[in-house]
Amino acid sequence: MSINKRGFASDNNSGVHPVIFQALADANDGHTIAYGDDPYTQKAMQLFRDEFGPHVDVFFVFIGSAANVLGMKAATQPYHSIICAETAHINVDECGAPERFTGCKVLYCPTPDGKLTVDMVQKHMNGIGFEHHSQPRVISITHPTELGTLYTPDEIRVLADYAHAHGMYLHMDGARIANAAVALNTNFRAFTTDVGVDILSFGGTKNGMMYGEAIVFFTPELKEGFKYTRKQGLQLASKMRYISAQFIAYLSNNQWRETALHANRMAKMLEAELIKIPQITITQKVEVNGIFAIVPPHIIPRLQEEYFFYMWDEHRSEVRWMTSWDTTEDDIVGFVKLLNQLLV
Amino acid sequence: MSINKRGFASDNNSGVHPVIFQALADANDGHTIAYGDDPYTQKAMQLFRDEFGPHVDVFFVFIGSAANVLGMKAATQPYHSIICAETAHINVDECGAPERFTGCKVLYCPTPDGKLTVDMVQKHMNGIGFEHHSQPRVISITHPTELGTLYTPDEIRVLADYAHAHGMYLHMDGARIANAAVALNTNFRAFTTDVGVDILSFGGTKNGMMYGEAIVFFTPELKEGFKYTRKQGLQLASKMRYISAQFIAYLSNNQWRETALHANRMAKMLEAELIKIPQITITQKVEVNGIFAIVPPHIIPRLQEEYFFYMWDEHRSEVRWMTSWDTTEDDIVGFVKLLNQLLV
Amino acid sequence: MSINKRGFASDNNSGVHPVIFQALADANDGHTIAYGDDPYTQKAMQLFRDEFGPHVDVFFVFIGSAANVLGMKAATQPYHSIICAETAHINVDECGAPERFTGCKVLYCPTPDGKLTVDMVQKHMNGIGFEHHSQPRVISITHPTELGTLYTPDEIRVLADYAHAHGMYLHMDGARIANAAVALNTNFRAFTTDVGVDILSFGGTKNGMMYGEAIVFFTPELKEGFKYTRKQGLQLASKMRYISAQFIAYLSNNQWRETALHANRMAKMLEAELIKIPQITITQKVEVNGIFAIVPPHIIPRLQEEYFFYMWDEHRSEVRWMTSWDTTEDDIVGFVKLLNQLLV
Amino acid sequence: MSINKRGFASDNNSGVHPVIFQALADANDGHTIAYGDDPYTQKAMQLFRDEFGPHVDVFFVFIGSAANVLGMKAATQPYHSIICAETAHINVDECGAPERFTGCKVLYCPTPDGKLTVDMVQKHMNGIGFEHHSQPRVISITHPTELGTLYTPDEIRVLADYAHAHGMYLHMDGARIANAAVALNTNFRAFTTDVGVDILSFGGTKNGMMYGEAIVFFTPELKEGFKYTRKQGLQLASKMRYISAQFIAYLSNNQWRETALHANRMAKMLEAELIKIPQITITQKVEVNGIFAIVPPHIIPRLQEEYFFYMWDEHRSEVRWMTSWDTTEDDIVGFVKLLNQLLV
Repeated sequence: MSINKRGFASDNNSGVHPVIFQALADANDGHTIAYGDDPYTQKAMQLFRDEFGPHVDVFFVFIGSAANVLGMKAATQPYHSIICAETAHINVDECGAPERFTGCKVLYCPTPDGKLTVDMVQKHMNGIGFEHHSQPRVISITHPTELGTLYTPDEIRVLADYAHAHGMYLHMDGARIANAAVALNTNFRAFTTDVGVDILSFGGTKNGMMYGEAIVFFTPELKEGFKYTRKQGLQLASKMRYISAQFIAYLSNNQWRETALHANRMAKMLEAELIKIPQITITQKVEVNGIFAIVPPHIIPRLQEEYFFYMWDEHRSEVRWMTSWDTTEDDIVGFVKLLNQLLV
Repeated sequence: MSINKRGFASDNNSGVHPVIFQALADANDGHTIAYGDDPYTQKAMQLFRDEFGPHVDVFFVFIGSAANVLGMKAATQPYHSIICAETAHINVDECGAPERFTGCKVLYCPTPDGKLTVDMVQKHMNGIGFEHHSQPRVISITHPTELGTLYTPDEIRVLADYAHAHGMYLHMDGARIANAAVALNTNFRAFTTDVGVDILSFGGTKNGMMYGEAIVFFTPELKEGFKYTRKQGLQLASKMRYISAQFIAYLSNNQWRETALHANRMAKMLEAELIKIPQITITQKVEVNGIFAIVPPHIIPRLQEEYFFYMWDEHRSEVRWMTSWDTTEDDIVGFVKLLNQLLV
Repeated sequence: MSINKRGFASDNNSGVHPVIFQALADANDGHTIAYGDDPYTQKAMQLFRDEFGPHVDVFFVFIGSAANVLGMKAATQPYHSIICAETAHINVDECGAPERFTGCKVLYCPTPDGKLTVDMVQKHMNGIGFEHHSQPRVISITHPTELGTLYTPDEIRVLADYAHAHGMYLHMDGARIANAAVALNTNFRAFTTDVGVDILSFGGTKNGMMYGEAIVFFTPELKEGFKYTRKQGLQLASKMRYISAQFIAYLSNNQWRETALHANRMAKMLEAELIKIPQITITQKVEVNGIFAIVPPHIIPRLQEEYFFYMWDEHRSEVRWMTSWDTTEDDIVGFVKLLNQLLV
Repeated sequence: MSINKRGFASDNNSGVHPVIFQALADANDGHTIAYGDDPYTQKAMQLFRDEFGPHVDVFFVFIGSAANVLGMKAATQPYHSIICAETAHINVDECGAPERFTGCKVLYCPTPDGKLTVDMVQKHMNGIGFEHHSQPRVISITHPTELGTLYTPDEIRVLADYAHAHGMYLHMDGARIANAAVALNTNFRAFTTDVGVDILSFGGTKNGMMYGEAIVFFTPELKEGFKYTRKQGLQLASKMRYISAQFIAYLSNNQWRETALHANRMAKMLEAELIKIPQITITQKVEVNGIFAIVPPHIIPRLQEEYFFYMWDEHRSEVRWMTSWDTTEDDIVGFVKLLNQLLV
């Protein structure tokens, strides 16, 4: 099975970081109680509280979509609505799971850069108290966005304040939250706990873990009954120690920081090469580990023969290139070389 | 974290078998495409087809409850009903996920030994064609049952024939299917493909895997649109290679067979000791790796201090002891010794 | 269309009582605001508060199943369970709507007479606080039961006290509540408000109304957001005045009482004749307007040619005969005469 | 209760037309079998087949939202999406019931006039066959639109052809379908059966009925199992004869046509007066019985004291005025007179 082609398709095409893998091996030791009542899970949860504050509640699930959907379910009744960017993962990449599991309406806003603003949200703030309308209950942002852009902590605070002023919650899809933290050169808390985020989907799989994501609740009422919601939502792992052990390693010794820094740095290196190529137009700010670019369509099939990556918008020949914790400088060099050859 | 107490609580308190773990390590090699379009997944699916027949369709999910719920969803509309034993995992251990995700009614039958019969099913075959009633659509059995008992292939065939004669499907929850196969001294096919099972939840986690279960469809109409159902059901793994790699190892070189044989043998060894103890009454046939027994209530707390296990029925002081791939003869000896000490 | 055969199939085969119909005609006067903000609805709600207490909240819906399902939804999260008699309408006659709309598990108890007791409920009170199990949240009784039997107010109080002691709600399906009240020779309040009922489905359609049922909440937290649940549950009538006008007439001038008394009296008259016929065995106490009886199977088809009625249990040749507000003494006389002719 | 203020709030503020009411009275005659197996329902269904073709299937429900939601459920699995105009009733006025009951994603398109075009639909035709995306399955149009505008039959045909070419269904919300038919001066068939509509919500309540709507399926596969969906969806009327009797009257003797013609004529009469008033700007074509207009905000409260009507868009001071089967010329004259007084 040496047919594994390298590429820039997604950071989830990467494998598991050796440090994480070793943690799995270390946890593979005899019996431990299932379903989370084990010392690994207790320790992992403590590390989350160290990062986000002693008051947060943490629940582990298998995947990021589940973290999003179940986390938002904790905050909603089926007659509520959820407001997000049109490009949000919950809107376009979860096959309607948010609607299916929460019963809620998902209202989306066109954005130039994947970032939601209060102005956009307000467009959907109609019919409050009017029983014919779904009642807005959650504002959901992705950070970094699906377009590789970042919110400042203040921008998040403005959205959180608006949400709270209207009896709503602010949810953050943090599938790549480590990439945001290192790009902002801060800790997680500065753009979550400290600015009013209520529900966080904390992802690790795209940054070197094998599987497992965390739902973090910042207000205690959200955890009410949530263990049943996780179970009924088919997200309670029996051998939970293997998720927890990964998170222990991930949150220790700056592990998450190093891999995210590397991925971001590789994106910057690729960007530096791309801006030299006149036939290529970068379409979004390169703030974390993704690059969006318009590329001459005729070279794309050849490029994809050598490197995995996805079209983002076929109509305008826009592609997405993601770097990862295991992207090498050689990957960048080889890719740019091929790009240049094809563009001659 | 050496505080991991051994015990007989469940086979999911065990860790990952070294052979499976090595397969994870081997798969942890560079990039591979996410979400199942990878060579590991292709190979694992082929091994399933080798076991069950070239016509089956296979979908990997994270946990057994998800295999059950999504598999039955493929066969049902929300106005259908599902008939099972009262002790069925889908009835008592999935927090209502079957009802929640399928919309169906779950109808249950009291049984002495966890085994469903046509006579029991018939009690619920009312109101066919009558729009006020949920329409029976799935008969679900667990094999081996939650009480550690087995169906003969012929008993399964009778249920399958009945199901098909009434426009229904037969679903098998095979969370411990390997333990059934080795106890029946046969291959998987003899009591699934060959006797008319339509939907199988194939479990590996309780027999030495880390996570990952498989849904096997034996009739092609069930896979229609199922990839969307899996995604919307929050069960599509991004780094699917790590589930697939485990299944490759599990289905190769008699791996599943050896661990299951061992677990069953340990249960028999424990049974052989228990029948010597007059204060203990074994309540179900010991056919696979579980023992149900009535135990003097006063010794239970002390016993649980040393060994994890669960009460099954507090009213009659019945406990459940599960053996596992990693149960040792020393575990049995020590446990029985303590039992005898406490019963003096 | 004079082909309308009379019979004893159900009290919903009857038409609309002239007094109710006149109320519809009177309300058919010019414009009034839609969706319930109209004076008819205000007045009807006041009449409900007069019956049940000033603190109750009242919501009108179209049908009894909707009153049951939406009312129980107000009290539950999807991970809850609902405990009822096996014969309950919510269990056997709503095509799984309770599971579908609430997401809850419905747990049912075999009963000899349709009446639930605490002993029966206790059988399902397992796994409290254990996330693998649906958590019991609602006890649902039907009064009078589907078998035409009655609870005493004290029996209801015992169930309510048990429910409240366990953090649960008591729901009453009162599709034929007027028949219960007149049989118990009391007002509605004596066996609802005064004994701890939390949620009531108040039916009128079976007692002379055209359509429309009411959900009555006895504790204020249940109405929270319920107007949205009703709308999303597709039960908000635009021209609500026509439901309200019926209820005004129904709850005024002893209207409900007279029709229910008549229906009950007709059942007693029929019973008095049936007990003279040795080939017929009445199987349940005749306490309201239904009679259950085992009848020689060979006469049933001929009987059904002349009078509509339903088999209750084919296996034992048990039928159900319902009387109604419009059953006449001639109906009884003619029916009994035919019965006797066929049994010669 | 003479406090019923007249107005232009909605055509559902009107009462029941005397002809329809008489039909209810005529049907109120003795016993008839419940739940639709009655001669009234048979006859009403035949009248629908006379209008739409002998091959259509017809199911009665209580309200238009239910007709929409259940009708679309017949065509969808939960992983599908439904594409509609942003102003569609299913998008903004059903409190998320479509998402809740179908599980589908609702994708909406901004439109200038409430009318959907293929160009708009295409924007959402992404990710076909890609399991991460909801799969487009239904195009839903409202005819006439919520903005009082009309499609030509050819415009509908283009949408239907597009839908069918992409394996999708065309759904029409015909809450005011009679108003469309008379405005187009045609029968129902010309813009439904003849141009490829697959699912129709046929409304009568806004045109003189008391309650009751019909779901019409134009392709036979959609009715498969639908009777259970209607029951589980809480829309099966027990005394169905009273819905059917209304439809018999509605579809006989040009009843629907006369009332719709009148309502449309009243809108035209109002429009003719409004265009004389320079401070008022009509914002949509007046094609049926609704007028949208920008009105000086300071007069609105005073106007609403005398006549019921709703704001449509507060930001731009746009109101909606609906006429009805019972709007009188005096209503128009009085309203315009008050308008002019307030605008002096």
